[in-house]
Amino acid sequence: MNSFIYHIPTKVYFGKNQLGHLGEELKKYGKRVLLVYGGGSIKKNGLYDKVVAEINKAGLELFECPGIEPNPRVSSVNRGASICKKEKIDVILAVGGGSTIDAAKFIGAGTYYDGDAWDILTGKAAVTNCLPIITVLTLAATGSEMDDCGVISNPEAKDKLGFGHPLLRPKVSFLDPTNTYTVSAYQTACGSADILSHIIEVYFNMDKDLAMLDSVMEALMKTVIHYAPIAMKEPTDYEARANLMWASSWAINGFIDGGKSQEWSCHPMEHEISAVYDITHGLGLAILTPRWMEYTLDETTAPKFRQFGCNVLGISSSLPAMEAAKQVIQKLADFFYKDLGLNSTLSSLGIDSSNFASMAKKACGGGILHGFKPLNQNDIEKIYRMCI
Amino acid sequence: MNSFIYHIPTKVYFGKNQLGHLGEELKKYGKRVLLVYGGGSIKKNGLYDKVVAEINKAGLELFECPGIEPNPRVSSVNRGASICKKEKIDVILAVGGGSTIDAAKFIGAGTYYDGDAWDILTGKAAVTNCLPIITVLTLAATGSEMDDCGVISNPEAKDKLGFGHPLLRPKVSFLDPTNTYTVSAYQTACGSADILSHIIEVYFNMDKDLAMLDSVMEALMKTVIHYAPIAMKEPTDYEARANLMWASSWAINGFIDGGKSQEWSCHPMEHEISAVYDITHGLGLAILTPRWMEYTLDETTAPKFRQFGCNVLGISSSLPAMEAAKQVIQKLADFFYKDLGLNSTLSSLGIDSSNFASMAKKACGGGILHGFKPLNQNDIEKIYRMCI
Repeated sequence: MNSFIYHIPTKVYFGKNQLGHLGEELKKYGKRVLLVYGGGSIKKNGLYDKVVAEINKAGLELFECPGIEPNPRVSSVNRGASICKKEKIDVILAVGGGSTIDAAKFIGAGTYYDGDAWDILTGKAAVTNCLPIITVLTLAATGSEMDDCGVISNPEAKDKLGFGHPLLRPKVSFLDPTNTYTVSAYQTACGSADILSHIIEVYFNMDKDLAMLDSVMEALMKTVIHYAPIAMKEPTDYEARANLMWASSWAINGFIDGGKSQEWSCHPMEHEISAVYDITHGLGLAILTPRWMEYTLDETTAPKFRQFGCNVLGISSSLPAMEAAKQVIQKLADFFYKDLGLNSTLSSLGIDSSNFASMAKKACGGGILHGFKPLNQNDIEKIYRMCI
Repeated sequence: MNSFIYHIPTKVYFGKNQLGHLGEELKKYGKRVLLVYGGGSIKKNGLYDKVVAEINKAGLELFECPGIEPNPRVSSVNRGASICKKEKIDVILAVGGGSTIDAAKFIGAGTYYDGDAWDILTGKAAVTNCLPIITVLTLAATGSEMDDCGVISNPEAKDKLGFGHPLLRPKVSFLDPTNTYTVSAYQTACGSADILSHIIEVYFNMDKDLAMLDSVMEALMKTVIHYAPIAMKEPTDYEARANLMWASSWAINGFIDGGKSQEWSCHPMEHEISAVYDITHGLGLAILTPRWMEYTLDETTAPKFRQFGCNVLGISSSLPAMEAAKQVIQKLADFFYKDLGLNSTLSSLGIDSSNFASMAKKACGGGILHGFKPLNQNDIEKIYRMCI
């Protein structure tokens, strides 16, 4: 069992009617606020007006960086960082989902770097500092509101890279489940697949770890599986939205992987798909995960599948491990493709196998992905082909 | 569902061989360190020497406040605060269990108050500031290492009061499960009863709350029930000690009670017992809890008992709620009195009913304890009598 450091200082205002605290929190960091947001949905649903009213009420100066893409691009990050440098921004306010918050993180770090922010993603440049980040979350999915990492795309390089640093963790996040009422059933499904995948990446692990954390992960996964279909059918069901929202933060803020050193599997594989084809991340994960499970299933990994089946999916504990594992994979596929109604194949999205070899090579960095079961380029290409 | 603020900034070094970080963490807060500890067990087991070596290596100045009692007394708090004032202490290092850490919290707050620290506990004086507190935990029980409250006894007033304030939360805690290897089977049992009780106080709640948190609480309770008997039999079982230790922190750091406003029940009742008779807190809780459950069980509360039974104790979900609830109470009593081997009655500790009336009055402050089921003085006295 590995030792670890736990440190999640993000302050979270959870629930309705908490936005009245926004001004006081922003003020702690300065007067000049850069508002970062996406394609304008917050203008349609009224959240933009509420946020601006709080900024004005607090007597702060507002600057804007709109237009962050769903798979946020490094060009937007560089644009934001330029504004911060030019306008001497004190604090970044990201209003949106994971893409907007991820972009805000690298805008914050990029402000302290003279050059292309992509250098931070590639590791060429170090994170030396980051502007304080406050978020108002509008989508339960990536967990970016409470974690210390983000993912940025570079379409010119057909590349999508993730990077984490403690300085990137938001100082304060406002999690109001009613701000997700307007999220479509499809985006709710994709977000829920993302949350579930964050937990699966950590849970499916051959290390001897803290059983307590396994139990907590099972609790979070049960929550997502129970409430995602409810939120899709009843978009204004507060209970469902609240449970999904808080589960999204805890799936990836660092708590559940205390001491775990294993690499992730499905996320690096999916990042290559959305880097090339710009599909929604959670959808890619939903297509990949059951195939990855099928590929990694063997006598040594089967007991973990059975544990998942018994404690999360209600599969009988009397089944032999291999049989239980097969049921688990089928049940999870049914959850993604029937309950959540997501596409089950890459071909249905118009994706063929022409880029699989290069995507697979990038996904494992030309070496081995040291996940639940080690995967090389050849393994990953096979998994991609199973998704066709 | 209530809104809430989540904010747990304590940094935790979890696992073996982390004490090398102690010096760098202390240094962040200053040069003059007050080492607070208990009756000297850390001198016997070598932890004192290790801690002092790290303080010396970091070039810090060491002052000492030993002799904190198992139910820490306000006289010790005042003694510690006097040292801090006189020696201009920068940071408090508490090495011990919950009693030592609780005392350190009020020493830290008492340093900024000219008068008896008891005034802070009674609410006569406000907490205006607190010296930074770093802890090295030696007992999995109270969760004081990561929470913002503490309990102090005043034997002259035959009183024991709890008090919480965000400034009291430790900045850094070192949780090395091997530091609990020397904890006796009896103290392991009492500590585990305390952890379980912290969760039960929150879990047994009639409010409509986040189901996710119920599932997480079930995960934590399963952890304690599974590992406590193992740690008692095999005191150097790292896995058992690690799971109990991390569960102790998460049982009470604030995460599980997001949005819950209900008062606790068994803790205020127990504090009166240990205030008068100076028994171990966890033992008192183990005696009280099954009787409190029996007393609060009715048609309205039975479904929550059944949920607990099904998800934590493996009771069949097909049982009617009342029958399931009765099985739950019996199973929990068996856990406390058979598996943990704790005394099941107050009379076995030499306690009779002579003080029950005054204790019951104090436990509810002469009014109502607004817990899972509201309890007045008369109710509480009846529960005490059930424990004889």
